[in-house]
Amino acid sequence: MVEKRIGSDIEIAQQAAMKPIGEIAAQLSLSEQEWMPYGHYKAKLSIDILERLKDAPDGQLILVTSINPTPAGEGKSTVTVGLGQALNRLGKRAIIALREPSLGPNMGLKGGAAGGGYSQVVPMDELNLHFTGDIHAITTANNLLSALIDNHLHQGNALGIDPRRVVWKRAVDLNDRALRQITIGLGGPANGILREDGFQITVASEIMAVLCLANGLDDLRERLGRMVVAWTWDQRPVQVSDLGAQGALTLLLKDALNPNLIQTLENTPALVHGGPFANIAHGCNSLLATRMALKLGDYVVTEAGFGADLGAEKFLDIKARMGGLSPKAVVIVATARALKMHGGVARDQLGYEDVEALARGMENLEKHIETIKAFGLPFVVAINRFTSDTEDELAFINSWCDARDYPVAESRVWSEGGAGGETLAKEVLALIKQHKGHYRPLYDTAASIEDKLQTLVTRVYGGKGVEFSSKAAKQLADFKRLGWDRLCVCVAKTQYSLSDDPTLLGRPSDFVLHVREFQVSLGAGFIAALTGNVMTMPGLPKRPAALDMDVLPDGRVTGLF
Amino acid sequence: MVEKRIGSDIEIAQQAAMKPIGEIAAQLSLSEQEWMPYGHYKAKLSIDILERLKDAPDGQLILVTSINPTPAGEGKSTVTVGLGQALNRLGKRAIIALREPSLGPNMGLKGGAAGGGYSQVVPMDELNLHFTGDIHAITTANNLLSALIDNHLHQGNALGIDPRRVVWKRAVDLNDRALRQITIGLGGPANGILREDGFQITVASEIMAVLCLANGLDDLRERLGRMVVAWTWDQRPVQVSDLGAQGALTLLLKDALNPNLIQTLENTPALVHGGPFANIAHGCNSLLATRMALKLGDYVVTEAGFGADLGAEKFLDIKARMGGLSPKAVVIVATARALKMHGGVARDQLGYEDVEALARGMENLEKHIETIKAFGLPFVVAINRFTSDTEDELAFINSWCDARDYPVAESRVWSEGGAGGETLAKEVLALIKQHKGHYRPLYDTAASIEDKLQTLVTRVYGGKGVEFSSKAAKQLADFKRLGWDRLCVCVAKTQYSLSDDPTLLGRPSDFVLHVREFQVSLGAGFIAALTGNVMTMPGLPKRPAALDMDVLPDGRVTGLF
Repeated sequence: MVEKRIGSDIEIAQQAAMKPIGEIAAQLSLSEQEWMPYGHYKAKLSIDILERLKDAPDGQLILVTSINPTPAGEGKSTVTVGLGQALNRLGKRAIIALREPSLGPNMGLKGGAAGGGYSQVVPMDELNLHFTGDIHAITTANNLLSALIDNHLHQGNALGIDPRRVVWKRAVDLNDRALRQITIGLGGPANGILREDGFQITVASEIMAVLCLANGLDDLRERLGRMVVAWTWDQRPVQVSDLGAQGALTLLLKDALNPNLIQTLENTPALVHGGPFANIAHGCNSLLATRMALKLGDYVVTEAGFGADLGAEKFLDIKARMGGLSPKAVVIVATARALKMHGGVARDQLGYEDVEALARGMENLEKHIETIKAFGLPFVVAINRFTSDTEDELAFINSWCDARDYPVAESRVWSEGGAGGETLAKEVLALIKQHKGHYRPLYDTAASIEDKLQTLVTRVYGGKGVEFSSKAAKQLADFKRLGWDRLCVCVAKTQYSLSDDPTLLGRPSDFVLHVREFQVSLGAGFIAALTGNVMTMPGLPKRPAALDMDVLPDGRVTGLF
Repeated sequence: MVEKRIGSDIEIAQQAAMKPIGEIAAQLSLSEQEWMPYGHYKAKLSIDILERLKDAPDGQLILVTSINPTPAGEGKSTVTVGLGQALNRLGKRAIIALREPSLGPNMGLKGGAAGGGYSQVVPMDELNLHFTGDIHAITTANNLLSALIDNHLHQGNALGIDPRRVVWKRAVDLNDRALRQITIGLGGPANGILREDGFQITVASEIMAVLCLANGLDDLRERLGRMVVAWTWDQRPVQVSDLGAQGALTLLLKDALNPNLIQTLENTPALVHGGPFANIAHGCNSLLATRMALKLGDYVVTEAGFGADLGAEKFLDIKARMGGLSPKAVVIVATARALKMHGGVARDQLGYEDVEALARGMENLEKHIETIKAFGLPFVVAINRFTSDTEDELAFINSWCDARDYPVAESRVWSEGGAGGETLAKEVLALIKQHKGHYRPLYDTAASIEDKLQTLVTRVYGGKGVEFSSKAAKQLADFKRLGWDRLCVCVAKTQYSLSDDPTLLGRPSDFVLHVREFQVSLGAGFIAALTGNVMTMPGLPKRPAALDMDVLPDGRVTGLF
């Protein structure tokens, strides 16, 4: 481990030697008409590029996932960025495809989503603030739809919407707990119909999931039109197309649909586009960005939210299936810290050596490896190094993998950039060269919702079965009646455990998954199964990070991490 | 009148021969570092330009205002754009400074704010949708502040804020009546403190007014810090600086503070920046944009919201005073239609000739002329031609002006573009050449709020006095105690009448202005006096314009007007 002292993420990012974005676009052989500048270091790429390159071969798709993480995360984004940089150092034309961050958490708990250390995408501050306005466009479209629903209720309610059963919520891209549950329309007849409502954080809006799964402008409009916003007095679903609002929503989203191009600290191109919630939605960057990256690069490194039980499963069962993607290799990120946590070490003790606990915790990694194998994909374990890791701990992980013939490599990309990821990159290239990838989704969409969930519980989470609340059971009956049981399933579950109980670490078994309620996302094309306590509107902490933020006289940003 | 058939605004705008925005920037002799592209036809201009040109002479400032309008408006924006184009045709280096439009009204009643016919700024569709994200940034800053206030209440309320006296409202840039009056924080202790709240449309946020009056980044931070958000249990005001949130708000607004550059249909440069409400705020584009335009052009044409009793008064008493601007000439726009309305013709009869009614209505114009004279400024009356106007009507207006030695010119800029504004432009140039402008604000800020209002009522509105509700009277006492009575006054009043009663057309007299309540805008630097029924959150109509909007397969926009 190189023990150089490295600065904070924002300090490193501000020292980046960025190329003008036109140079990055030129590297990708884009014509002037195919990209639009947003400042000097960001661009939007026209989806017409996909039409021009429709007969060109796709690059090799590499998915980065992880074991069940500590609350600090396993560093998937950092490894993703670093691996892309490493591939470029090895002479490969690699592109990174990442999600764009939500502003809410940035203002709350410190920490954007641009990677870290010497493996970041830049300009980091702009990415973590308004970026190219995609999330603002989604917020606006979400809330225009709400305004149109309430206006419909106010202007005579021709569709017969039951105001108690409006399921479409308003959105704000902030952490704002006071908006979780509200009453609107107070103050008399001029102010509309009184009803209960609530705000979600924008990235939890179905519109974000729709944008990330749409295959183009027409598909976007159709998906938006299918979204269920309410139920009538006689229990029929009301969709956006019933209100006639799909055109206006499409209009508001037409620029947001174009993927964004930025670069890493080492000038590797990065498509950063879309960021759906990883619990009630599928948690991956946009399908259009991934498809475009595959046309523009020989290798595409992308990631999926949370551990392999959530992110990779949804990437492979939802996004890859809908988008016709065929990933060739998977990187499973693990840290000694998280493995020790799964072996029973308390969070405040994770910085100390404990090889025995580490050994016990390996069963969590083992389960995720089995999951990736179940999807027919080859993998490499990436050990994301922390300065507190000891040589004995790393030696143990390596020997554990070697004993099982599991490919394994250290990642030092946080402290060393792409150079620290070359070993990992070589392992990945070797896997792809061996043509071992035979991707297949885990369930058939023709199966019932119950069967799909049973498949996930037994084959991905390692439990024994699934139970439904009386509300969920009633919803299942509705879905069959309405023909919605052939959709994909998207499980909202804690990321800290393979089960739905965040305290069950390691590799729990014999547990049952408790489905409390379903949420219908017809536009996205899945039914979300909610387990445990799913929070779609975070709150701010005692001292929000926002209170330390400012702009210096020279225009530089302080307080962003 | 040229009787060519002209298309809809969006059709004309889509046929525009726009120059790449870099060419427009080059016309203004801007260096590459001084502008940032937002797509190919929009740019943000760095406020560093003002520092570079601080010793350069200012151009001549021309203010466009109007008589009390019909509900359709008098066409001030169209005349402003057309006059700028006409000045350029006459070989003058002219720049236009306009407000940016709010999305809410566009989605409601059809009609953006980009001028009309052959006198528009383009790209019209982008201007009327997300533009460069300024309003989204303001919405976000506004709502971050709300979240921080509610978080402060939730986390122990160290400042002792009375939750019943939080005056800071949330914002959304949409017409959404159901959000006018709401209850937040329902659902138990995890969801914060239960209290009443409401949403304003974003352009009514004090942050919009602050952005439009700030002289730079430091002034922006100071103004944001001064904003009053609540009152404590012991009746002390709580400001943003008490919460420590001014840095984060400044950070969110740092790009929005940079003026936007676009162009007219005839490639005249246009700075379109900021759009504060014209009732509870001052209703002019940003001070920074106006100052920058004055440094970059020899003539700057700008407008102020509603009629001269509201827009011009606030421009001259608030914006020009705070910003050290010295306008040289005023254009007072009038239409035969509005003059007939003031003469007693019903709205559905305004398309028919009625010279007698027109003659009676001239008294409204006369009053506004007196107002402009009271500010020490020369003026020209611009008759904004409609196809329904008759030759007799126009002859009457002309002879009425001639009899009084009032300069007057027809404006045909809607149907003819800049060519239709050359007569008007020549009149304006003549006024400026005569050096008749001796701008002075109407009141002294050292006067009491009551005296300032009395000045406005007697010298601008033509009434006899002002009355205060018991609430307003109590507020006046508070303001004296707190030293806030030396601020400017910003009157929120109907735009349809010189009085506070929208049914009193023509030139009412002997009326009293009834101040219902004051709203404190310490950040902006004024106290808003609310009269009548001030609406800061519009509603959608029975059939919102949004329902006719869409994107065509080739990417063109339909349904925007």
